[in-house]
Amino acid sequence: MGLTVRRSLDVKPSRLLLLLPFLLTLLLVGSQGESNAMDNVATERMAEESHRQDSANLLIFIMLLTLTILTIWLFKHRRFRFLHETGLAMIYGLLVGVILRFGVHVPQSMSDVILSCAVNASPATLLVNVSGRFYEYTLKGEVGRGKGHQVQDDEMLRKVTFDPEVFFNILLPPIIFHAGYSLKRRHFFRNIGSILAYAFMGTVISCFVIGLIMYGFVSFMKIVGQLGGDFYFTDCLFFGAIVSATDPVTVLAIFNELKVDVDLYALLFGESVLNDAVAIVLSSSIVAYQPAGDNSHSFEAMALLKSFSIFLGVFSGSFALGVATGVMTALVTKFTKLRDFSLLETALFFLMSWSTFLLAEACGFTGVVAVLFCGITQAHYTFNNLSPDSQDRTKQLFELLNFLAENFIFSYMGLTLFSFQSHVFNPMFIIGAFVAVFLGRAANIYPLSFLLNLGRKNKIGSNFQHVMMFAGLRGAMTFALSIRDTATYARQMMFSTTLLIVFFTVWICGGGTMPMLSFMSIPVGVDSDQDTSSSAVLDGSQRRNAKHESAWPFRIWYNFDHNYLKPLLTHSGPPLTATLPACCGPLAKCLTSPQAYENEGQLHDDDSDFILNDANVSSMYADVTVSTDASGSHTINRKHLYSTGTGGGPSDEGLDHELTLAEHDVAIRGTRLVLPMDDPVEPPSTVTLPPPPSPPCSDPRRHRL
Amino acid sequence: MGLTVRRSLDVKPSRLLLLLPFLLTLLLVGSQGESNAMDNVATERMAEESHRQDSANLLIFIMLLTLTILTIWLFKHRRFRFLHETGLAMIYGLLVGVILRFGVHVPQSMSDVILSCAVNASPATLLVNVSGRFYEYTLKGEVGRGKGHQVQDDEMLRKVTFDPEVFFNILLPPIIFHAGYSLKRRHFFRNIGSILAYAFMGTVISCFVIGLIMYGFVSFMKIVGQLGGDFYFTDCLFFGAIVSATDPVTVLAIFNELKVDVDLYALLFGESVLNDAVAIVLSSSIVAYQPAGDNSHSFEAMALLKSFSIFLGVFSGSFALGVATGVMTALVTKFTKLRDFSLLETALFFLMSWSTFLLAEACGFTGVVAVLFCGITQAHYTFNNLSPDSQDRTKQLFELLNFLAENFIFSYMGLTLFSFQSHVFNPMFIIGAFVAVFLGRAANIYPLSFLLNLGRKNKIGSNFQHVMMFAGLRGAMTFALSIRDTATYARQMMFSTTLLIVFFTVWICGGGTMPMLSFMSIPVGVDSDQDTSSSAVLDGSQRRNAKHESAWPFRIWYNFDHNYLKPLLTHSGPPLTATLPACCGPLAKCLTSPQAYENEGQLHDDDSDFILNDANVSSMYADVTVSTDASGSHTINRKHLYSTGTGGGPSDEGLDHELTLAEHDVAIRGTRLVLPMDDPVEPPSTVTLPPPPSPPCSDPRRHRL
Repeated sequence: MGLTVRRSLDVKPSRLLLLLPFLLTLLLVGSQGESNAMDNVATERMAEESHRQDSANLLIFIMLLTLTILTIWLFKHRRFRFLHETGLAMIYGLLVGVILRFGVHVPQSMSDVILSCAVNASPATLLVNVSGRFYEYTLKGEVGRGKGHQVQDDEMLRKVTFDPEVFFNILLPPIIFHAGYSLKRRHFFRNIGSILAYAFMGTVISCFVIGLIMYGFVSFMKIVGQLGGDFYFTDCLFFGAIVSATDPVTVLAIFNELKVDVDLYALLFGESVLNDAVAIVLSSSIVAYQPAGDNSHSFEAMALLKSFSIFLGVFSGSFALGVATGVMTALVTKFTKLRDFSLLETALFFLMSWSTFLLAEACGFTGVVAVLFCGITQAHYTFNNLSPDSQDRTKQLFELLNFLAENFIFSYMGLTLFSFQSHVFNPMFIIGAFVAVFLGRAANIYPLSFLLNLGRKNKIGSNFQHVMMFAGLRGAMTFALSIRDTATYARQMMFSTTLLIVFFTVWICGGGTMPMLSFMSIPVGVDSDQDTSSSAVLDGSQRRNAKHESAWPFRIWYNFDHNYLKPLLTHSGPPLTATLPACCGPLAKCLTSPQAYENEGQLHDDDSDFILNDANVSSMYADVTVSTDASGSHTINRKHLYSTGTGGGPSDEGLDHELTLAEHDVAIRGTRLVLPMDDPVEPPSTVTLPPPPSPPCSDPRRHRL
Repeated sequence: MGLTVRRSLDVKPSRLLLLLPFLLTLLLVGSQGESNAMDNVATERMAEESHRQDSANLLIFIMLLTLTILTIWLFKHRRFRFLHETGLAMIYGLLVGVILRFGVHVPQSMSDVILSCAVNASPATLLVNVSGRFYEYTLKGEVGRGKGHQVQDDEMLRKVTFDPEVFFNILLPPIIFHAGYSLKRRHFFRNIGSILAYAFMGTVISCFVIGLIMYGFVSFMKIVGQLGGDFYFTDCLFFGAIVSATDPVTVLAIFNELKVDVDLYALLFGESVLNDAVAIVLSSSIVAYQPAGDNSHSFEAMALLKSFSIFLGVFSGSFALGVATGVMTALVTKFTKLRDFSLLETALFFLMSWSTFLLAEACGFTGVVAVLFCGITQAHYTFNNLSPDSQDRTKQLFELLNFLAENFIFSYMGLTLFSFQSHVFNPMFIIGAFVAVFLGRAANIYPLSFLLNLGRKNKIGSNFQHVMMFAGLRGAMTFALSIRDTATYARQMMFSTTLLIVFFTVWICGGGTMPMLSFMSIPVGVDSDQDTSSSAVLDGSQRRNAKHESAWPFRIWYNFDHNYLKPLLTHSGPPLTATLPACCGPLAKCLTSPQAYENEGQLHDDDSDFILNDANVSSMYADVTVSTDASGSHTINRKHLYSTGTGGGPSDEGLDHELTLAEHDVAIRGTRLVLPMDDPVEPPSTVTLPPPPSPPCSDPRRHRL
């Protein structure tokens, strides 16, 4: 048993990104030694030197990001759309990786001190007694096998090799929160059934298909003798899980910029956001709940069931937690007058959203999943309570965090191809993986689309299916899951292969999205709101489809949400005194915000954030949804429904009656009418205040059909 | 020589704040061991448990901040001003500290493994070989002396004890950058001479006065036998340096909210911002350049000179670096059309500002000082190039970061009083320190004010001096400098005493500011712009004072800045083709932005961001300054000068001629006229576009006198 003391300070720069303080602690150790000044002057100097070099390493990343931003601008400026910014960031990362690998040589003046002691395990903390003074050492991780004595050879490269957990704890949460927060909930919830099918069933199917195919390939490779190490069935399943997560970043940015069909967008977005979460829970279930104690690494039926129940437990727990913190934030922002101080409000919003992640991790749930649903809840409830200033601030803050994290991840991916030390590129495995990924995606999309089309009135066309097949990019989540553990041969091979899959899909599929869309003759340049309203005018039967999609469980939920949750959690919606039974009078009174009484007419009005509210056209209300566009500028659509009608219940008869009305009424019902932002009549900051109860349709300019 | 292996995972939560990834690495170590699954299941479980507990610890801080925010809101809502939010955050921190100290008991199931090996020094990285697998350990720092075997007793408390370097690397930079970025440059530069005197000379005087007094006290204590350890003269000087830094946070927030006299505000703000930087450089010079190698710990003349030159070198280097990155950002934002994409622009701005800090640290300068001047440069040049949207975004982003960091620091200070393990409260030392701090502050303010008043026409009144004396709060910087090193007895005593000084000044002096101001009959509720213009109207001689203050070196700088730097770096100012000599024609042409040609009339116009431009009243221009108000909401004053006159040069005769003009003209000259934000005529986003060259004074509503 040997204890090797290296004098070098090899700390990964990624960790450094946020761990500068940690490194400075090293500096401290030197300055602490004043009373016996000379004995660790050397340590001090070294620590200082290391601190400087760490700063320099971080600078590399900052410069990389700066360069990416400038090039993105150039691309946008010249309207060059072939290569997306994420692909660009990867290319820059690649270049810097090449330079670091082959161009830079850092002189190594470190010497090894080899010591022997009897250590039985690897504890998390070591306490070393040096002439009466105790120094604390923290476990940093395992160093590659057999590399004990040659680690320092690649000091520089190790320095720029990322700590994978940074993804899960620093970079991914803002991305996922932003995805939830900027979700176009109306389109999302209209297609919720299909999205859930693709995200849950599809990902599981894809995981098992890929796992089985890979197991076939690996078995064949073992026979042929192409395999350099162990590769168990659980490894195959794990690989299937990690490469099944499609990326919400790249394609959707393109789709959003091009304004493709809203349903296609909703399907792809919803699937890719949710299947990230599914992939995380799935892969950790596979790892954690394979039969422990034996080395069979087979995936037994009991273990499968156990994994499944764990999966459900973790997923629903994370979901509940995310929603709970969102609801709490909504309550806090509703019942305090915090909106008078937008800085406080923004800070509270930020802290509560972040605490969701921590809380989930502290409870053993998945922080990323919790943060996603927290984001959706915040957007649905809390956002209505925020002051207009805070709405902008929170939106912009998370947009910026999302942008930085995203570009950092992609440029880092490029860097990794050359800076990572233990690549295992196995041509057969790579070919197998590409085939498996292709087939896995196909086994997800086509059968599920067929089944879904049996139930859907608004069919998912075959051109949509092909685009969904094509647009299954693998991105940040796949990368993060695969770099999380690169200790074994199997994992290293997986990581290298995953990296190639990510590169291929981002560059080829990402770059080919435009031609693909035109080849499939899918219309672009569709305004999401205009689209639905005009289609409602043109085609009455489409409205019936929409009606069909909002089936009874959703309908019950909408009513419940509109009549009880929205009034309880926000300033909008009808007053609780009107919706709750009389016995709850005093409680309802104290829970209802003063503004809500002005919305009394909204009673029983459906929430058209979720569905096209075709059954019920009682009065007007104001609501807000957030949308992002690819240029990065934020737009907040303030949507007001000014509609006619006498306040019928949300019954099906209502719909039948409506169908006899004039075309103008049909146009108003069935969708929400949109007020353009630059409407000179509308003051820009009256979001949470309900519009004055003016006679509906009094101002024709308010209707954009 | 003993090697103690602790199985506990005691990582300080402060570091955790951003080092979660690091801790998760520990988790990884477990999951890596799949192929030999059983051997570190224990480690895995422990790491997981530790990760959960760390998340929970972080949650404590988040909850603390959330609570603080809600209470701040309550205070603002009820207009309760006696206790400022920072004092409040400290109280909450104290309470949580008490609970953690006395209320919570975490069961310790960890066992010590004591090993012996021959380690000669404390290297930064240890490599431990456990049955063929190498684990890397990083040096975390020294553990208190003699505590080797009892460290785990206070596991929980150690966990919530902050890593002091987090201040310097994560929390302080945004605070300092925000200070520079939101600086009211006009008032700042009008008083620059006095501010520099207070900040540099005053801090040095204060440092030596406190150091000498403390040395007297300590010598006396040594005789009386009250001293429990070594306390050298350099320690006294170090103490003097760290408690000489006044805090820009607390008092200024109050002052800003109350709208006290602008000159008083500028003096206090400028002093406290700059003396933070001075204190950092001073204290590190004292530590690093005391005579090394001997144990005399006296502060020799040569060492003093050396310290001084190092001080100057580091300070000017940091200054130059900060300005350089600011200028670079200005050039990038000017010569690209990045302003079309505000997200990119904001991201670039953020990255460049952050890289200033890293660059300075990488070069061995002081990051905090560099960031301050970077902030000032960004506000002066880059801000003019940003799109209105980015101006808001950057402003709000740094405001939020500043707010969170500030409250985190203050609530942490409260927590430390109970969670810190090695407090040394020595009553005599504490009394001595309070006396020394009081006398040191007096030796700074009164003699310097006397000397400055000899030169100033606009005297610093004795009531101002008393308020400056009283408002010398010690805050975040003092705390950060003192917690940076708490290894020796002297440092521990310093830290405990400093904590009490901070508590006392924040609660008593901070809370007493209001009564103090009214007692000193200093007017509050003064609009900074209104104030100067009305005083210009009322008192012609005051304008002469202002004139006098802008002495020739500043005058030269203003002209240079206005004629060359502003046109070169921003879209505003006169075109370079007009200001540069003819030989530079082509160069000037390519450097001048198209907008600048519209500003040709501005030639030789003084930049009234810096001074009251009383000599020259040629044409109008637009400029923007950023101001914060205490409520946290941002206001961007768009200031337009529409003034009369025929374009005289910046000569002294101009002033004499002016004095003969009518009172109305005097009112317009000598200050800038302010357009209120809500002026319905003014579009809200025309900042960098110069206003149309309409006849001056054509619209009387534009003047608010």
